[in-house]
Amino acid sequence: MLNKCLVFFLLLINQIYAQNTDSIHIRKIYDNTLVQGKAYNWLEQLCKDIGHRLSGSENAQKAVLWAEKTLNQEKNYTVWLQEVMVPHWIRGEKEYLTQGKNKYNITALGGSISTGDELFPKAIEAEVIEITSFDSLKNIEDDKIKGKIVFYNVPFDERFINSFEAYGHCVKYRGRGAIEAAKKGAIACIVRSMTSDNDDEPHTGMMNYNENIPKIPAAAIGIKSCNKLSQAIKSNPKLKYKMLLSCKTLPDIKSYNVIAEIKGNLYPNEVIVVGGHLDSWDKGEGAHDDGAGCVQSMQVLQTIADLNYKPKRTIRCVLFMNEENGAKGAKKYAEWTKNNSNERQIMALESDSGGHTPRGFGIEGYEKLQDKMFDYVLQFKYLLEKYYLHTWNKGHSGVDVGFLNEQNTLLMGLSVDSQRYFDYHHSNNDTFDKINKRELHLGAASMAAMVYLIDKYGVELQ
Amino acid sequence: MLNKCLVFFLLLINQIYAQNTDSIHIRKIYDNTLVQGKAYNWLEQLCKDIGHRLSGSENAQKAVLWAEKTLNQEKNYTVWLQEVMVPHWIRGEKEYLTQGKNKYNITALGGSISTGDELFPKAIEAEVIEITSFDSLKNIEDDKIKGKIVFYNVPFDERFINSFEAYGHCVKYRGRGAIEAAKKGAIACIVRSMTSDNDDEPHTGMMNYNENIPKIPAAAIGIKSCNKLSQAIKSNPKLKYKMLLSCKTLPDIKSYNVIAEIKGNLYPNEVIVVGGHLDSWDKGEGAHDDGAGCVQSMQVLQTIADLNYKPKRTIRCVLFMNEENGAKGAKKYAEWTKNNSNERQIMALESDSGGHTPRGFGIEGYEKLQDKMFDYVLQFKYLLEKYYLHTWNKGHSGVDVGFLNEQNTLLMGLSVDSQRYFDYHHSNNDTFDKINKRELHLGAASMAAMVYLIDKYGVELQ
Repeated sequence: MLNKCLVFFLLLINQIYAQNTDSIHIRKIYDNTLVQGKAYNWLEQLCKDIGHRLSGSENAQKAVLWAEKTLNQEKNYTVWLQEVMVPHWIRGEKEYLTQGKNKYNITALGGSISTGDELFPKAIEAEVIEITSFDSLKNIEDDKIKGKIVFYNVPFDERFINSFEAYGHCVKYRGRGAIEAAKKGAIACIVRSMTSDNDDEPHTGMMNYNENIPKIPAAAIGIKSCNKLSQAIKSNPKLKYKMLLSCKTLPDIKSYNVIAEIKGNLYPNEVIVVGGHLDSWDKGEGAHDDGAGCVQSMQVLQTIADLNYKPKRTIRCVLFMNEENGAKGAKKYAEWTKNNSNERQIMALESDSGGHTPRGFGIEGYEKLQDKMFDYVLQFKYLLEKYYLHTWNKGHSGVDVGFLNEQNTLLMGLSVDSQRYFDYHHSNNDTFDKINKRELHLGAASMAAMVYLIDKYGVELQ
Repeated sequence: MLNKCLVFFLLLINQIYAQNTDSIHIRKIYDNTLVQGKAYNWLEQLCKDIGHRLSGSENAQKAVLWAEKTLNQEKNYTVWLQEVMVPHWIRGEKEYLTQGKNKYNITALGGSISTGDELFPKAIEAEVIEITSFDSLKNIEDDKIKGKIVFYNVPFDERFINSFEAYGHCVKYRGRGAIEAAKKGAIACIVRSMTSDNDDEPHTGMMNYNENIPKIPAAAIGIKSCNKLSQAIKSNPKLKYKMLLSCKTLPDIKSYNVIAEIKGNLYPNEVIVVGGHLDSWDKGEGAHDDGAGCVQSMQVLQTIADLNYKPKRTIRCVLFMNEENGAKGAKKYAEWTKNNSNERQIMALESDSGGHTPRGFGIEGYEKLQDKMFDYVLQFKYLLEKYYLHTWNKGHSGVDVGFLNEQNTLLMGLSVDSQRYFDYHHSNNDTFDKINKRELHLGAASMAAMVYLIDKYGVELQ
């Protein structure tokens, strides 16, 4: 009995000691990041010296070289580029929607074809019909759609507390609006920008075609223009509008994921990934989407190195190329790790919800492991709540890390305050001045704290 | 036994029903505020049509009339003005700090005397000595301070996760810096701005004198100027600086608290107060401090009326005058309620931490009631956590409602995300464009939800 008591007592002491050590180390991570963090200055370079960086563009290539150089300059990381072929879509110089003297602010959706012929874009002229849901579109006779421009006017539902849910309910109109409209004979489509803001910047983003349905040009429209257009149609549905897009898709082009790592000193083949995506849309400066996630991931390595912490496992920062229009970088990385039998991706943590105040984590596991992984991560909550990380949700992690799902990787996404994100997202509003240094660095510190815990305790759930 | 079971069963049903009713009504409050809220538009009027509004200024009077008119226009509230005498300090036109051709960006602290004579302000010229703490000031011999300008260079400690804690550690240099410097014979003092931002806008704020210690002029300095001044002193401590402030204090002047209420239909003499302060510093537009709190409090009444909810108790919106430099409005209201034996202030909820995303509540009770009141409020947490209100802290509520403490009132303050607040606070940066509509309205809805619960369940803790 005495022996049992002694064992219990020693175990208890050991546990208290571990908790205390963790608590102290996490405090050091936050202190280091908040006081000495470089993420904010890096992001200024990325946004101001380079700017937006759509896959395949010259700026995307500059961003690759900038990230490689910056990571190489900092510490003694292993830095390398992982080659990947990416789509090369370009907007072209001209895009407009007019009716007489009235101008409406539109911008092509990513992947759209031009109006007229691709080599010789030419304005189309047609009536515009306003649609408020796919269901209502279905109920309209085809000949009332045929030859017209379909205009999806579906606003964000302001009642959602988390803006990502409002986005989730609308984004299908951007994603498959052109397909559904073309099925009914429309010759183009226009989609209300995915935002709760009330300015007139159109918000672009990816759209899709179905190979069995005719491809039609598709654009987003700014909110003020959207409201004006809706009014104009109500006044006179018979007016004809001129619409021009001059975008086109060039052959795929070579690009890179940028990867940097600190080798683990005990289990080097167990890899913990932190990442964001280096590409952005060709609007604004890609500050929140997703320059923020990139520099936060770089900062995780920086903080580990600054604190002279020797991780047991390999900590790898992956700046994915082409999240926005193809996720080719993420697919490449997942394919490579699957075929690289030497190593196991035990955890992958993505930041791609903007550089705002961190609120918690989204936690995702492969099928049957979902619940186990969630419960496993939840044991760390008490250590991070004091840093205002309260929302720990089962579900979505991130687009890029998502491709590691079938490798049984614990997937996580940094959750942040969501109220402002869609004011900026995919538009000219997404610029460096919208970033707050402390918010950005708190996010990086939260990621580093989670990485520390997973590195220390591993993930053994089968 | 069967009877006991039945009673238990009925009580349980009753409780489940009440919880469900609350949950549904709170959802309606958020829906109404997020979709139809007017707070954002009101704030635009207050900031853009009027602007900053220091107590005693013409703008403060305009703000009183604007609030009275707006509340009268909206619904069938009882609206009235509560007269109060307030301080009337004015900045004057000129203020500067120079050394040769070098200019440093300073601004007088609120309440400061001018340099030279009050009627004929005149620049002083003296050496500047840098001080990093009151302790270090104490350890310096008086004759090394005498005749000099004391320059407190104490930065925000970036390690605090909540920026209000960093502020709390520095603000004493603004509050009693002039007193401590004058004790040692200094002829003026300059205080590093209370901010973690890195621009050059000086942040003003209240400073104090001690009637037994000579009064010396006191100013805040912008961060870039602060760093430049620190460097210049290190290079050559013997340089003389010219400093001019032309502020003065005029006789107290008449102003008003603006009050609007919806009478309770069951216990009209039990009053629930929601409030913010209508005055601001004479910088920027007083958008976050505290235009936000005012329009949120107005919105609470609006939402109650929109939903056609008939409160049991009287819900009163109080827009306090003069929080920034005297709190005369709050003192007046507390004095009036103390002498108004007809009514009891059961709860007072203040919003004065900026219009950012709400995170929870600060909860304060009178002495021995503190714990009881905290526990009482905590029972509602489960209803509001789904709205991301996670931080429920015992302690500070707000300056204005604080004066009701001795009336055994349950005091609460809306806690919001704190990272950006001190970038704007008391400076030209505090303008309407820094406000996010959804964040502002979420705060108003959170206040309205708490008011609904306290109205429904009352506060009976003695």
